[in-house]
Amino acid sequence: MNTSINIFDTTLRDGTQGEKVAFSAEDKLRIAQQLDAFGIDYIEGGWPGSNPRDMEFFELAAEASFDHARIVAFGSTCRAGNEPNEDRNLQLLVEAETPAVSIFGKSWLLHVEKALQITAEQNLGIIRDSVRFLKNHNKEVIYDAEHFFDGYKEDPDYAVATLKAAEEAGADTVVLCDTNGGTLPGQVSEIVSEVLKQVNIPVGIHAHNDCELGVANAMAAVQSGCTHVQGTINGYGERCGNTNLCSLIPNLQIKQDYQCIPDQHLEELTALSRFISEVANLTPDIRQPYVGRSAFAHKGGIHVSAVMKNEETYEHIQPGRIGNSRRVLVSDLSGRSNISYKAEQLGIELDKYSDNVSEIVRELKDLENKGYQFEAAEASFELLVKKMTGVWEEFFELEGFRIIVEKNVSGSSRTEATLRIKVNDQVEHCAAEGNGPVHALDKALRKALRKFYPEISNMHLNDYKVRVLNEKDGTGADVRVLIDSAEHGQSWGTVGVSHNIIDASWQALTDSFSYFLAQEQKNLQPKEAI
Amino acid sequence: MNTSINIFDTTLRDGTQGEKVAFSAEDKLRIAQQLDAFGIDYIEGGWPGSNPRDMEFFELAAEASFDHARIVAFGSTCRAGNEPNEDRNLQLLVEAETPAVSIFGKSWLLHVEKALQITAEQNLGIIRDSVRFLKNHNKEVIYDAEHFFDGYKEDPDYAVATLKAAEEAGADTVVLCDTNGGTLPGQVSEIVSEVLKQVNIPVGIHAHNDCELGVANAMAAVQSGCTHVQGTINGYGERCGNTNLCSLIPNLQIKQDYQCIPDQHLEELTALSRFISEVANLTPDIRQPYVGRSAFAHKGGIHVSAVMKNEETYEHIQPGRIGNSRRVLVSDLSGRSNISYKAEQLGIELDKYSDNVSEIVRELKDLENKGYQFEAAEASFELLVKKMTGVWEEFFELEGFRIIVEKNVSGSSRTEATLRIKVNDQVEHCAAEGNGPVHALDKALRKALRKFYPEISNMHLNDYKVRVLNEKDGTGADVRVLIDSAEHGQSWGTVGVSHNIIDASWQALTDSFSYFLAQEQKNLQPKEAI
Repeated sequence: MNTSINIFDTTLRDGTQGEKVAFSAEDKLRIAQQLDAFGIDYIEGGWPGSNPRDMEFFELAAEASFDHARIVAFGSTCRAGNEPNEDRNLQLLVEAETPAVSIFGKSWLLHVEKALQITAEQNLGIIRDSVRFLKNHNKEVIYDAEHFFDGYKEDPDYAVATLKAAEEAGADTVVLCDTNGGTLPGQVSEIVSEVLKQVNIPVGIHAHNDCELGVANAMAAVQSGCTHVQGTINGYGERCGNTNLCSLIPNLQIKQDYQCIPDQHLEELTALSRFISEVANLTPDIRQPYVGRSAFAHKGGIHVSAVMKNEETYEHIQPGRIGNSRRVLVSDLSGRSNISYKAEQLGIELDKYSDNVSEIVRELKDLENKGYQFEAAEASFELLVKKMTGVWEEFFELEGFRIIVEKNVSGSSRTEATLRIKVNDQVEHCAAEGNGPVHALDKALRKALRKFYPEISNMHLNDYKVRVLNEKDGTGADVRVLIDSAEHGQSWGTVGVSHNIIDASWQALTDSFSYFLAQEQKNLQPKEAI
Repeated sequence: MNTSINIFDTTLRDGTQGEKVAFSAEDKLRIAQQLDAFGIDYIEGGWPGSNPRDMEFFELAAEASFDHARIVAFGSTCRAGNEPNEDRNLQLLVEAETPAVSIFGKSWLLHVEKALQITAEQNLGIIRDSVRFLKNHNKEVIYDAEHFFDGYKEDPDYAVATLKAAEEAGADTVVLCDTNGGTLPGQVSEIVSEVLKQVNIPVGIHAHNDCELGVANAMAAVQSGCTHVQGTINGYGERCGNTNLCSLIPNLQIKQDYQCIPDQHLEELTALSRFISEVANLTPDIRQPYVGRSAFAHKGGIHVSAVMKNEETYEHIQPGRIGNSRRVLVSDLSGRSNISYKAEQLGIELDKYSDNVSEIVRELKDLENKGYQFEAAEASFELLVKKMTGVWEEFFELEGFRIIVEKNVSGSSRTEATLRIKVNDQVEHCAAEGNGPVHALDKALRKALRKFYPEISNMHLNDYKVRVLNEKDGTGADVRVLIDSAEHGQSWGTVGVSHNIIDASWQALTDSFSYFLAQEQKNLQPKEAI
């Protein structure tokens, strides 16, 4: 039988101590509901009283219903000198009306004596009194031993005595915290094993990622007998973050014999990760293990041809198990197989033009060498292949454009673009002003195209990136422009390279519009056929 | 005595297999020189023959000199059926003219029989022949055992036999590769220990991060006796990346008794990490352990006050040891000390210029909020402070400029800038053509200034960078331009921000020229005084 591990999520508390991570009370509720549906056991929602947002969350949570998870309020043991029932912090923990609470106390003797300026025995009394007070209010109590590993290294007996104080007072779980994130897996294993000989209630681990070992440390603790793991989705958290549950859960449940969440929810992992980065308004990390966009992306030519033969060769698990999927990237590292696979996905049968495949590969490699990057510009890639294989018809022709940027003594500058295009022998001549030269050109081209292709109004530009390629050449250098465009949730990328930023932008812009129009045309075909 | 570990960097080879990571041959050379100066032992530069860029790098590297590092060319063992001296891949490895080569071969019996369709014994022959061929050409040979851990799990005897084949043929090091990144630290320890009983040459580890264990697995291998570690700066690499050397090196050298690089270079780690993400044009990960901007950033109120009392409380090491620094993410007061600190670092005593330091601070913070970034633009920062405090005189005034970009049916575009500036009531009107609008403007401004300040010919632009700030606004977004200029080895950075790339470039350009002229003036003063 698999060992069951309690998963304690602190995305809403320790997660928000990470730089740039912030959630409204409503955000927190939406996240808590997703975590509950996913099968997380404990959801730490915040520190009631530390800020109004956390208070509000606990009010919302008290009215919501959760199928599986227990909501947890976080706080500290009572202040030195306070009676627990007079301690505002403990009172607020009770008032949060959660089934469980987590409270942290000191394990490091140095801090007890220096920071709190109380005796070792007084600190044990504070821990006992605080836990007992909360148990008397019928809470499940999770005791977080702050700085446990640092304290243990200095005085193991005292560090363990703090855990025993919590245990005696009725704590349900004690959690060993590597608060500074500086402990290594070998030390975690050794210390957890020692602690388990002396403590008779479940022991948990709370690790940070300051040595890039947040996941490894939690795994070492579990291997040594911890049955409760604290962490966050995407590893968000103070400084370098906390144990990343998106990696920990599959490591324990797919690769080892532990049970964290119901098996059938594993394939929701990727969606959960992206949902939470979306709510936090943080760009998802493409390289993130298991759930990142690149986690099953293959770029090297040899890897691709091998994966096409047998997926086990370069994939440690099937991407679908955690809801992710395989991608093949096209770049100058790619051999024939990348290009064939990619073309196949795009519905282009290269073998039909079999003499052409090597030529296409050569041409793409040449372009990449000039600075074109097709990984993020799949639409340009598709257009290029279609042009090379002769299955492409242009939607418009450029007759010419002129951009004027003027600045005078008054300081502000004015930008104007004029443009002439031809569609089926009909010439359209347009002008537009913009924020800058590319913006003006974009507006003029839209204006001109709209006359022939009114559907162009449905698409918009999402993202515009400029990268100077050979920077040493200063303002005379080559530039690469990447444009990301979208229509109703569908998005596509295009690329242009030139020593002139306007030319590079023009290439990426026209590819973007052309790709969109080709897609629209494809969608129309069935209707015409009727 | 500390155990010495050989660090093998593959940022330029496996790193570029990561999505969005691409370097020109010149980029690669600049990176290799930085890695060498940092104290890396081996620098794997690419796969000669796989693409033109890698070829070009080895040509550049052959002409450059490296103080410490050995440059390594990467490739595979020879193809089944080929004699080594007829194998194009092996020939190119020799022609790359590097002191060392790394070649990979198969360890997994399944792949030998299924993918290569040769016998187990034939595969051992290929390994032996390939290694021997390279040794006969006086190369140091590092043999990479691809899929070693997966192969070992299936057939340990055969996996080890492939290593012994390489050893017999004279390989200098064998490297155990966790190619798919699916192996856990416990398995790594166990397998490395077994291998070391049977192999008598140095053994290395090449780990990937697919389980977020790239660093932990390399550490487990070192703990079990490996003395050679492969990895990349910032963990760039195929899929989820490779062992991150920016975490591994301090973990081994600061927290354990291993020697990876000379101690005095450890404090260059943060700068090295940021340099490489800059060259790759990838936004640095703020949460990255050790070197990230948030790695020593304190947000929680309790943490901040504690850290201010005693840094050990929430910092696992002193940030200065690896060249990073502490940040406090709270109040406006901290903003004030940041800016005073920055000014002080630049040698500007703010209280000397104005009693109203707070006003300067407010204005600078406002600008930073709009996207100005003064870390890489200390010349603009200095100019701004001087302008605000009234100790600045302009060298020229802009009367106006006009830029015209024209493109017609023939395809190529033409860019022209005209410009009027005034110096001491004398107006200069100039025109110039350029590669793009900024290049043309730069040339026209130089032309005009040269008449009054001939010394302007001594300075040149080193580097020109564009970053779109609010990417979601597409081509109408704000952009930041950073310019790096130099004269006789002295360099300085300037910045401009605007929704118009021309305006932003103009700001950075004029700051750059003005700063240069002010420096020249300062240098002249002593002579005039004589």
